[in-house]
Amino acid sequence: MKGTMLYGPRDVRFEERPDPKIIEPTDAIIKLSAACVCGSDLWPYRGVDPVKQPVPMGHEYVGIVEEVGSAVRNIKPGQFVVGSFFASDNTCEICQAGYQSSCIHRQPGAPTGAQAQYARIPLADGTLVATPDIPADDLIPSLLTASDVLGTGWFAADAANVKPGSTVAVVGDGAVGLLGMLSAKQMGAERIIAMSRHETRQQLAREFGATDIVIERGDEGVAQIKDMTNGIGAHSVIEAVGTQEAMMQAIRSTRPGGYVGFVGVLHGVEIPGEEFFFSHVHLHGGPAPVRRYLPELINLIWSRKINPGKVFDLTLPLEQVVEGYRAMDERRAIKALLRP
Amino acid sequence: MKGTMLYGPRDVRFEERPDPKIIEPTDAIIKLSAACVCGSDLWPYRGVDPVKQPVPMGHEYVGIVEEVGSAVRNIKPGQFVVGSFFASDNTCEICQAGYQSSCIHRQPGAPTGAQAQYARIPLADGTLVATPDIPADDLIPSLLTASDVLGTGWFAADAANVKPGSTVAVVGDGAVGLLGMLSAKQMGAERIIAMSRHETRQQLAREFGATDIVIERGDEGVAQIKDMTNGIGAHSVIEAVGTQEAMMQAIRSTRPGGYVGFVGVLHGVEIPGEEFFFSHVHLHGGPAPVRRYLPELINLIWSRKINPGKVFDLTLPLEQVVEGYRAMDERRAIKALLRP
Repeated sequence: MKGTMLYGPRDVRFEERPDPKIIEPTDAIIKLSAACVCGSDLWPYRGVDPVKQPVPMGHEYVGIVEEVGSAVRNIKPGQFVVGSFFASDNTCEICQAGYQSSCIHRQPGAPTGAQAQYARIPLADGTLVATPDIPADDLIPSLLTASDVLGTGWFAADAANVKPGSTVAVVGDGAVGLLGMLSAKQMGAERIIAMSRHETRQQLAREFGATDIVIERGDEGVAQIKDMTNGIGAHSVIEAVGTQEAMMQAIRSTRPGGYVGFVGVLHGVEIPGEEFFFSHVHLHGGPAPVRRYLPELINLIWSRKINPGKVFDLTLPLEQVVEGYRAMDERRAIKALLRP
Repeated sequence: MKGTMLYGPRDVRFEERPDPKIIEPTDAIIKLSAACVCGSDLWPYRGVDPVKQPVPMGHEYVGIVEEVGSAVRNIKPGQFVVGSFFASDNTCEICQAGYQSSCIHRQPGAPTGAQAQYARIPLADGTLVATPDIPADDLIPSLLTASDVLGTGWFAADAANVKPGSTVAVVGDGAVGLLGMLSAKQMGAERIIAMSRHETRQQLAREFGATDIVIERGDEGVAQIKDMTNGIGAHSVIEAVGTQEAMMQAIRSTRPGGYVGFVGVLHGVEIPGEEFFFSHVHLHGGPAPVRRYLPELINLIWSRKINPGKVFDLTLPLEQVVEGYRAMDERRAIKALLRP
């Protein structure tokens, strides 16, 4: 088959790869119906995360089950499935508490890479969720978002304790931040403040439910949020970037007793203890336990109540994956959809 | 009157001070029935927090109302009252959400100092809670703990999301940590692991509800907690110290999806973002909103369901306050009660 490998900074290649095979009896092999490039793929692509050896890329996936291992009970060949970037048994104490992305048997969700024609998925019964039927083609982009970017935005809003009537600020206007806004709206937020200075992203933010746009960043952005909230800050803030500036902007935009949900993979961030102590903010985040939310998200998409697939503003054939990386790296695209 | 002043490192004096007077119409003057030395008083006493000018000391108090300002409606002379280390209006949006220690009109709870014969309490109606009657003398130490150390331990357990059946670890065996154990037990914790290497404190820990003692610290302490919890860590961890080591011990002892409640004033602590991201831990704490809990805590004490006053292992006449500081500094006493 053909798949995507990263060899070093900005050296990504679409090339011949071995066909994935069942290794463990709990594995499944899926034929990808769609894949995409993740914001987090850009960290190693840009060389921020070192690449020590060539690595298969892609961890967001939907597809048709081709084959399952002898111990797989619930997932069957022919089903259309959605998975996540971590494989989980969905039965351990941590999974049962809703933290499947910290499953005690956690593995990479698609170790052979999902920017490919086929992928091996470990712990198939725990990891994959089948849709009610083979989906209409126009639902596929939205179902793909459930695999990571929507699931992550949803977790961010949940971790930020968004409730009906909440005022929510969102730091980061990438795909996760934008779908955090969609999630906050679904959870009943009354006011959703998008912190964004890019016009095309502002438009999508409004489509997804943003009621206000703040273009200022850092201390000025914080001052704007305070001005809009009687001087006390938002109830809930989503941090969807992962830098020091974004994290501090999030903490400082939150009222005492409020919540920051953070999902940008933190890079070089140190949270200053004394300031955090007096902020009275709740802080929670990390790698989203997407599996927890998949049944609900699939249902919302299937019934066409949400259309998160709009976040893909570039669609390419899978073999042009390299251009997908370039377009996202240069911020020409919010998120690139790849169709095999 | 006489009161306590800190002039510099280890230079604390009990001396003649001006009688407190009503300044704002929302003030009350109370005659102290008891006061005490707080673990946080040791930071400036030891010179860790710089002392730029002589400061009146003491922020935990119970007493009889002597006089109230013209705008005070609910608090009346002759009542026995319990307050807290921050004065709050108890009506603003932040107070109503339960974060009175971040009240938008927040002031020091006893600006004239509570290690004294009399104290001025700002925002009396919002800050003070009257007991049902003048308490029996043996209830006074427990009522005094509600003013800070019990309220803080209670908030730590609440911030750590202690629920019936929880496994709770407590980092710190000072008065706050010990009363965090008492609080966790009241909240229904099944297992309470005290991290303590001091025998007298271990005994009190067991009296307050600890089911297990771990004497190891740092990574070894974390390994012990993991060993006791199927390798995954506690549901809830209380951090009641405020140092880098204690905070990391707390985060690392918590299972993914679990909660750290931290109440030790953080000194020189930086929370490493990437480790925290992958820990999946909820983090919440800060200056305890004691006012939120006062009615419930007074009720528990009044009905003799809890006896937090046991935390005082040294009782001195107020004029010997200097010896109270020394005994706590040298860890000869867990907490010193002062009786005027």
